Amino acid sequence: MSIVVTDPPRTDPALAAAFAEYGVATVHEAQGRTGLLDPALRPIYKGARIAGNAVTVSMAPADNWMLHVAVEQCRPGDVLVAAPTSPSSAGYFGELLATALASRGVRGLIIDAGCRDVAELEKMGFPVWSRHVSAFGTVKETLGDVNVGIVCGGQRIDAGDVVLADDDGVVVVPRLRAEQVLEASRQREEKEAVSRERYAKGELSLDVSSMREKLAAKGLRYVSHEGDA
Amino acid sequence: MSIVVTDPPRTDPALAAAFAEYGVATVHEAQGRTGLLDPALRPIYKGARIAGNAVTVSMAPADNWMLHVAVEQCRPGDVLVAAPTSPSSAGYFGELLATALASRGVRGLIIDAGCRDVAELEKMGFPVWSRHVSAFGTVKETLGDVNVGIVCGGQRIDAGDVVLADDDGVVVVPRLRAEQVLEASRQREEKEAVSRERYAKGELSLDVSSMREKLAAKGLRYVSHEGDA
Amino acid sequence: MSIVVTDPPRTDPALAAAFAEYGVATVHEAQGRTGLLDPALRPIYKGARIAGNAVTVSMAPADNWMLHVAVEQCRPGDVLVAAPTSPSSAGYFGELLATALASRGVRGLIIDAGCRDVAELEKMGFPVWSRHVSAFGTVKETLGDVNVGIVCGGQRIDAGDVVLADDDGVVVVPRLRAEQVLEASRQREEKEAVSRERYAKGELSLDVSSMREKLAAKGLRYVSHEGDA
Amino acid sequence: MSIVVTDPPRTDPALAAAFAEYGVATVHEAQGRTGLLDPALRPIYKGARIAGNAVTVSMAPADNWMLHVAVEQCRPGDVLVAAPTSPSSAGYFGELLATALASRGVRGLIIDAGCRDVAELEKMGFPVWSRHVSAFGTVKETLGDVNVGIVCGGQRIDAGDVVLADDDGVVVVPRLRAEQVLEASRQREEKEAVSRERYAKGELSLDVSSMREKLAAKGLRYVSHEGDA
Amino acid sequence: MSIVVTDPPRTDPALAAAFAEYGVATVHEAQGRTGLLDPALRPIYKGARIAGNAVTVSMAPADNWMLHVAVEQCRPGDVLVAAPTSPSSAGYFGELLATALASRGVRGLIIDAGCRDVAELEKMGFPVWSRHVSAFGTVKETLGDVNVGIVCGGQRIDAGDVVLADDDGVVVVPRLRAEQVLEASRQREEKEAVSRERYAKGELSLDVSSMREKLAAKGLRYVSHEGDA
Amino acid sequence: MSIVVTDPPRTDPALAAAFAEYGVATVHEAQGRTGLLDPALRPIYKGARIAGNAVTVSMAPADNWMLHVAVEQCRPGDVLVAAPTSPSSAGYFGELLATALASRGVRGLIIDAGCRDVAELEKMGFPVWSRHVSAFGTVKETLGDVNVGIVCGGQRIDAGDVVLADDDGVVVVPRLRAEQVLEASRQREEKEAVSRERYAKGELSLDVSSMREKLAAKGLRYVSHEGDA
Repeated sequence: MSIVVTDPPRTDPALAAAFAEYGVATVHEAQGRTGLLDPALRPIYKGARIAGNAVTVSMAPADNWMLHVAVEQCRPGDVLVAAPTSPSSAGYFGELLATALASRGVRGLIIDAGCRDVAELEKMGFPVWSRHVSAFGTVKETLGDVNVGIVCGGQRIDAGDVVLADDDGVVVVPRLRAEQVLEASRQREEKEAVSRERYAKGELSLDVSSMREKLAAKGLRYVSHEGDA
Repeated sequence: MSIVVTDPPRTDPALAAAFAEYGVATVHEAQGRTGLLDPALRPIYKGARIAGNAVTVSMAPADNWMLHVAVEQCRPGDVLVAAPTSPSSAGYFGELLATALASRGVRGLIIDAGCRDVAELEKMGFPVWSRHVSAFGTVKETLGDVNVGIVCGGQRIDAGDVVLADDDGVVVVPRLRAEQVLEASRQREEKEAVSRERYAKGELSLDVSSMREKLAAKGLRYVSHEGDA
Repeated sequence: MSIVVTDPPRTDPALAAAFAEYGVATVHEAQGRTGLLDPALRPIYKGARIAGNAVTVSMAPADNWMLHVAVEQCRPGDVLVAAPTSPSSAGYFGELLATALASRGVRGLIIDAGCRDVAELEKMGFPVWSRHVSAFGTVKETLGDVNVGIVCGGQRIDAGDVVLADDDGVVVVPRLRAEQVLEASRQREEKEAVSRERYAKGELSLDVSSMREKLAAKGLRYVSHEGDA
Repeated sequence: MSIVVTDPPRTDPALAAAFAEYGVATVHEAQGRTGLLDPALRPIYKGARIAGNAVTVSMAPADNWMLHVAVEQCRPGDVLVAAPTSPSSAGYFGELLATALASRGVRGLIIDAGCRDVAELEKMGFPVWSRHVSAFGTVKETLGDVNVGIVCGGQRIDAGDVVLADDDGVVVVPRLRAEQVLEASRQREEKEAVSRERYAKGELSLDVSSMREKLAAKGLRYVSHEGDA
Repeated sequence: MSIVVTDPPRTDPALAAAFAEYGVATVHEAQGRTGLLDPALRPIYKGARIAGNAVTVSMAPADNWMLHVAVEQCRPGDVLVAAPTSPSSAGYFGELLATALASRGVRGLIIDAGCRDVAELEKMGFPVWSRHVSAFGTVKETLGDVNVGIVCGGQRIDAGDVVLADDDGVVVVPRLRAEQVLEASRQREEKEAVSRERYAKGELSLDVSSMREKLAAKGLRYVSHEGDA
Repeated sequence: MSIVVTDPPRTDPALAAAFAEYGVATVHEAQGRTGLLDPALRPIYKGARIAGNAVTVSMAPADNWMLHVAVEQCRPGDVLVAAPTSPSSAGYFGELLATALASRGVRGLIIDAGCRDVAELEKMGFPVWSRHVSAFGTVKETLGDVNVGIVCGGQRIDAGDVVLADDDGVVVVPRLRAEQVLEASRQREEKEAVSRERYAKGELSLDVSSMREKLAAKGLRYVSHEGDA
């Protein structure tokens, strides 16, 4: 019953790409502190930030066959998102598959498993967020699914959701909420710019955000070292 | 019963800062192989080394309110040291709080939890040693303590202890032992410089440190491959 | 019953060194997906690749005495490979031992435990693959073995086996298979160069490797989003 | 935007309960090796097996408020399924909540976090499958959702899905597939009963399942110890 | 500089023992959700609950010498509490040491490391809470401290603090707060008995604890499945 | 190149079985604190102790085909010892395979992966030591080896080595050392019986084993609480 969905709904590519103007933390907050993937998924090198439509892949443990199947389903600007059906640290992905994806304009890979050829991938500029770095080889024996909803890094991801990744990790934005979350991200960034300026001048968040009263109401006391002894 | 101690005892700032001339490994050894925090606390970027007076913060899980309270208690040259009351991988700290701390001259943060905005923090040059990198947001609902003794990375740390951190990790030096440990660190470094020079010339520690006799006494035997078969 | 084997069989040094032309992933695959050490053993800095004869060390937990003993057994081009008899995150190895090894022409260290002085080691250009970075000090009280077979990173390693390490991890090649595995690695790399070129042009592995039929035979179906609903 | 869905679709209670005739492994296999929750979720005591409609709860880290909200949404025969929005080992659940759930006829709890009062829960006969056993207390400050789809133990679970748990772990069966999976489980059990009987008599699966030819085709060779040397 | 403190301050033995009437969760809550040791410290068998004065031991990794030293410092009713100076899974403790402790009236052991002979210990009725079960042997080479403050399971513990352990884990109560915390535990238990009775009758905590208004104020909404779609 | 060795050398069955008179800790110590498998391999139920000749199996991740092959190679009194070539938590083994093994007189299974049907296995009295309990299913696609040397739980194990397992874990004794280690175990047990009797009477190991002098020589000091302050 393994299937490849060839025409899943998609987020407008320009809308998806626009998320790359914001950081993962900003977008995660802007959608109500949801959608963050397990922080154990780390970038294999620093400095990349990508956003795009998710093409999802469900794979058997230590079997990367479905990644080969998924390549064909990718369009320029997409992000491949893959998870094994049970935990695996094998190295599902390396330079050859990256070459294939890059030639199709895919922006990067999110994989809840292992990645290899990390030096070559950095040289190519093909970013990967993975749970493991491992050279352990995989087989091509068992089928899985492409563009069927998966759980990756503890989050539900459907094909056509927006995925954003940077040095802080990876966040997913459901397709139907993308427009609204993008706007909320923009607003959050604006508001933070104001706070940043005030903090840089030495103002305290205790005052900027009027926390002192609420703290006192909860019972916070300021004491001197002697009085405390 | 949450409190902020406003005037904890402190190590002389110049004495505290002087530890930055030595590596974490040296100081840890110089105080009798004690005080090293759990090595799972890693720097978010390479190359920083800081030392200063600890300002300590105890926080609820996934709640960073007390970090905002702690900013006000920091002085130039201090190091903020924070731990949740139960394990949490949430991202308690990011660019905005770093801006506030930097504007007060704080040297860095040690946190037994998660940190976010790591790319921005590296750009700012504000070093953090954390257990996790995570964008997961926190709330501001529950009180904690500032400048009350905590356990961070498995070590007891009191406000005014010296904290030293570099690429090898983090070590705490109790306030009352700081002067003596600094001197012991200096002596250890001198002694190591001599060994380094001898090793670089090809001398063996077996000879430099007269280990051969003790090894033989414990029963070490040198055998040939054939004799061993 | 602790012993040092002074003249273990060795792989021809030129043969061992030749493995450094290939990546860890390539060699691991070329010998039938075997020999890869636990991916938790990571390089302390990026960009090194070394290959050489293994000098093996078995050590007590948090005791680095046998590393000092092992230095004397190393020859130019060797790679030191060390494992504790029970798990330990202590920092067995640092700049001083690295100075001693470097002066004998040793290419690097693989250690299933902790390493310290990582900034200094990177500056020296002495690469280490370790399970932990930790400044925690060790004692010199208990004997172990040198050049006796060990398990390191979950793999059996005998003195004189070839060890290859790069940014992807570490692989061991048994001495008696070294020549054959080197040739198989060469062939694999040639074959991959062909695939890489075709993928870069946009050809699909589904076609290049004739996977479509096998996938269909296993039952993979391509469906449209609507048809699937 | 926190919500409680008061009337989610449900699996017929008798159908849901019927799954308790089968083991978790059987049902997991019968639905194509899918739906198994992370095996780190373990029963707090041995010997329970429960099946029922899932009532789902999404909670803030270290905050069990929504469990109190969820009690009211439970019906006899239900199974409560709860997950925090970021990893938490806190003890969200104990004897008091169990008393409340038991009085409503709830069969047990699946929680991707910590549980406490485990001795009392065993005495009451209220089974829990949890990731942690921990007495760490929680607060009641932050909202979450009830009967909205969650990820628990790495699996998507919607209210009204069937959840089955025993000493082997926990499996979820999507509501719309429940009838078909129950039948497949029955068939699998029948088939296994035949194999069991044959194995008990000493027959080999190599013969019972005609594996020898396929093994030989893949290249398996039987060799004698001498021939192998 | 290793020392054994022979006459540390102690909690009144009757007061310390009285904590065994309450569960770990109750006492942890009664002292403001503090003092709980890392839940990874688990009992080696079910059903024990002990409370007593802590005798503290700091030990080198994989070295149990100081446990032998500590036996002499124990009095009837004490609880031995031990932690290595760096993480160790070795089996520091087994039947022989338990025999020695039992003969002195010690109630049990809390150890942030490994324990062995678990079958024999259960037969003897000598309870242990440990991080690991491991037969790995230890040496007797390196000194440590007895009755000096330690960190065990992430909590500061001083000799003479009260330690309480049961199937839920381990909690420490500082000596000077013992009386007050015991009374708070008694009150908490009384209050919980009332709630338990009401819950058993089917009343909801939403009503018993008047949560509905606060939930509504925070914005919780009850919606029907259709309305939600 | 997958092979099954049909006639590996074996330890005399009576000699192998005799190890079951001793505990894992005793035998591990008796052979110089070696051979203990990773303590993460735990028994699925309490109270079993088995010893016998190892039949070794190397398997692909999440693929249990070779266990079926291995059954045929087992003789009465053997212990099956299996490890995947890369880490896997899948449930390779359950009631059906246990029925097959039991019918051939196999004493139990050691597996560095997952096991399922644990309730049924306990009922049958077929003991398993595994790293995980997991119902996750496996495939039958990839070959491995039987009776070729493996690494299981971090230890080298060859077919015909003796494996001993009890509630403390698992230890391997190399075939050629079995006789000598059995005798050393007997002697150790005798010696411990004497110590046990003396400790039970209240004698201290400090005296029984004359540790006081050595402790003093290393510098241990006994101080009073006041003197220490």
